[in-house]
Amino acid sequence: MSRIERIRVEDLAPGVWRTRVMIRFGQCDPAGIVYTPNYFDIFNSVIEDWYPAALGLDYHALIRDRRLGVGYAHASADFLIPGFMGEHLDVAVVVANIGRASFGLTLHAMKGEEEAVRGRFVVVTTSLDAHKAVPIPADLKAALEAYQERCR
Amino acid sequence: MSRIERIRVEDLAPGVWRTRVMIRFGQCDPAGIVYTPNYFDIFNSVIEDWYPAALGLDYHALIRDRRLGVGYAHASADFLIPGFMGEHLDVAVVVANIGRASFGLTLHAMKGEEEAVRGRFVVVTTSLDAHKAVPIPADLKAALEAYQERCR
Amino acid sequence: MSRIERIRVEDLAPGVWRTRVMIRFGQCDPAGIVYTPNYFDIFNSVIEDWYPAALGLDYHALIRDRRLGVGYAHASADFLIPGFMGEHLDVAVVVANIGRASFGLTLHAMKGEEEAVRGRFVVVTTSLDAHKAVPIPADLKAALEAYQERCR
Amino acid sequence: MSRIERIRVEDLAPGVWRTRVMIRFGQCDPAGIVYTPNYFDIFNSVIEDWYPAALGLDYHALIRDRRLGVGYAHASADFLIPGFMGEHLDVAVVVANIGRASFGLTLHAMKGEEEAVRGRFVVVTTSLDAHKAVPIPADLKAALEAYQERCR
Repeated sequence: MSRIERIRVEDLAPGVWRTRVMIRFGQCDPAGIVYTPNYFDIFNSVIEDWYPAALGLDYHALIRDRRLGVGYAHASADFLIPGFMGEHLDVAVVVANIGRASFGLTLHAMKGEEEAVRGRFVVVTTSLDAHKAVPIPADLKAALEAYQERCR
Repeated sequence: MSRIERIRVEDLAPGVWRTRVMIRFGQCDPAGIVYTPNYFDIFNSVIEDWYPAALGLDYHALIRDRRLGVGYAHASADFLIPGFMGEHLDVAVVVANIGRASFGLTLHAMKGEEEAVRGRFVVVTTSLDAHKAVPIPADLKAALEAYQERCR
Repeated sequence: MSRIERIRVEDLAPGVWRTRVMIRFGQCDPAGIVYTPNYFDIFNSVIEDWYPAALGLDYHALIRDRRLGVGYAHASADFLIPGFMGEHLDVAVVVANIGRASFGLTLHAMKGEEEAVRGRFVVVTTSLDAHKAVPIPADLKAALEAYQERCR
Repeated sequence: MSRIERIRVEDLAPGVWRTRVMIRFGQCDPAGIVYTPNYFDIFNSVIEDWYPAALGLDYHALIRDRRLGVGYAHASADFLIPGFMGEHLDVAVVVANIGRASFGLTLHAMKGEEEAVRGRFVVVTTSLDAHKAVPIPADLKAALEAYQERCR
C-alpha cells in the first residue's frame, strides 16, 4: 500500500538529531491508535525542540520577537506501522533541502528499529506582520547548513 | 513555492459534495493562523460528514459496529492561502482513485472563489481487531463508485 | 458521585440560546468516549457561536480588532452521562452573573432530554496588549444584560 | 477575581511528585496564551506520567488490559497567571481525598515560585466494558494511600 520504503535505525547518519516521545492516551482515538492530526502535532513539537537543540536557535523568540513565521507550505505523513498509547517513538529530523525562502524537513518516527511514520514538511519563512515569504535569515540558513553537514 | 496550482470554484464538477466550516479561535496559533495539525482535524471532520451525506454510510457504525478502520496510509496538505479565525472554508471532497483495499481522496478547501488548502488522503480499509488491511467492503466500494460517477 | 443534580430540557427557559454539536471520532479516546479536554474545546466553540447569535457581537472582532480578551479565570465541567462518537449534544448557554470585569456562564450539554455535561466558566475581560483585566465594555455588558433578561 | 489563593513552591510538601512541561507553540491561541482546553490536556498528560512515576502503576495497562476507566466526574481549573509559549511549568500532583469508587486530585502548575494554574479532578474508577462505576481496585487504593502518606 505504502509507496515508500521504511528505513531502519542504522540508515540514519550518526549526526542526525533525534528525540523520544511517548504516545499519549489523549492522542489516540476510538480505533486505539494515534489520531492522524496528532502525528502532525507530535512532529511540530519535535521540530520545536530541534531548533534550540540542533540549530542553537530559540524557536519561540523567532516567532515572538523577530516575527518570523516558520510555518508550512506542505506537510505530509506516511503511516507505515500503527502507533498505540504508551509506546515510544524516536523521531529523527533530517534537512532535505535548503532554498531561498523555504527548506525541507524529513522526520523519521522510529518504533524500535523500524520506521513507523515518515513526515515531510516544507517550511516557508514569512514575515508574520506582512504574511509574505521572506528569505531565510542568515543565522537560520547558516545553522541549517551546518546541521546538514553534520548529518552527512 | 507551492508546487501545485490552485483551482477555482468553477473547476469543481457540480456533483462534488462540499460543506462549510468556520475557522475557530481555538484552531489558530500565536501566528494568528490555523495551526497546521488542525487542518488535518478539519479535513477528518469533513470526511466524517461526507460518508453519510455523500455515500449514504454511517461512518461511526463502520468503526464501532463493523470494526472497519478507515484510517490513512498517507495524509498531506498543501497550504496555498493562509486561513484566519472567523473565516469560512468550503471544503469539497473528490474521490481520486479506488483500489482493492484503499482509496484516495482529494479535499479542496476553498476560501471564496480560490483554493486555500489542498488535502490528499489515502484511506486504507483495515480490520480494527486484526489491525490488518482488508478489501474495501462491497457497499462502501459501490458507494465510492457511484459518487465518483456523479462527480464527472 | 456527582455533587450536582442533572437538569432536564424542560428546566431551561425558552429564551435560552442553544446549539447542536456532534461528537466527532477525533474527539474520542481509546476508552471510546469524549476525551475530557475536548469537552472544553466543544464548550469554547459553543461560546464562540453564542456571541454573534445571542449577543449580536462579533467574537473574532472583539479579540482581533478591539484586542479584548474574553478568556477564563475559571473553567469547570461535571460529567453526568458519558458521550460517544456520533451522538449529538444540544448545548445551552446561561449567563449566571455579571460583574465589573468578569461574568459567569453555565453551559448545559443535553443528550436528548437529559443533561450529560455541565460546564461553568468565569470569563474575564482583559486587554490583550496589557494582559490586565479591564471593565466589561458597555456594548458587551448591555448585550449580556439583555440576554439574561430574555432567559428569565 | 480569582476566588482561590495562589500557593508558592515552598507550600508543597517535599514528597509531592512534580514534573516539568514546556508550553508549546501549538498549545497557544491567537491571544498568545495557552488555549484553555489545552491546560486540561497538559494536566491529563501529567497525571498519565504520575501513575507510573509516583504510584508505580502502568496507566496504559490499567485502561488497555484491565479495562479500568480512570476518567473524570469533575474537572476544573483556576487560571491565576497567564502562560506563554516557551515557558516551563512545574506541575505537582496532590491526592486530595480517596473514596470508594473515586478519588480527588489537585494539580498545582507552578511558574517559577508561584502557582499559575490550579487543576482539580475527581477521578471515577469505572468498568470500560459496562461503563459503570466500580470500587477502586486494591492495588490502586494502596498506592494512593501510600502516596498520600509520603506527601504529608
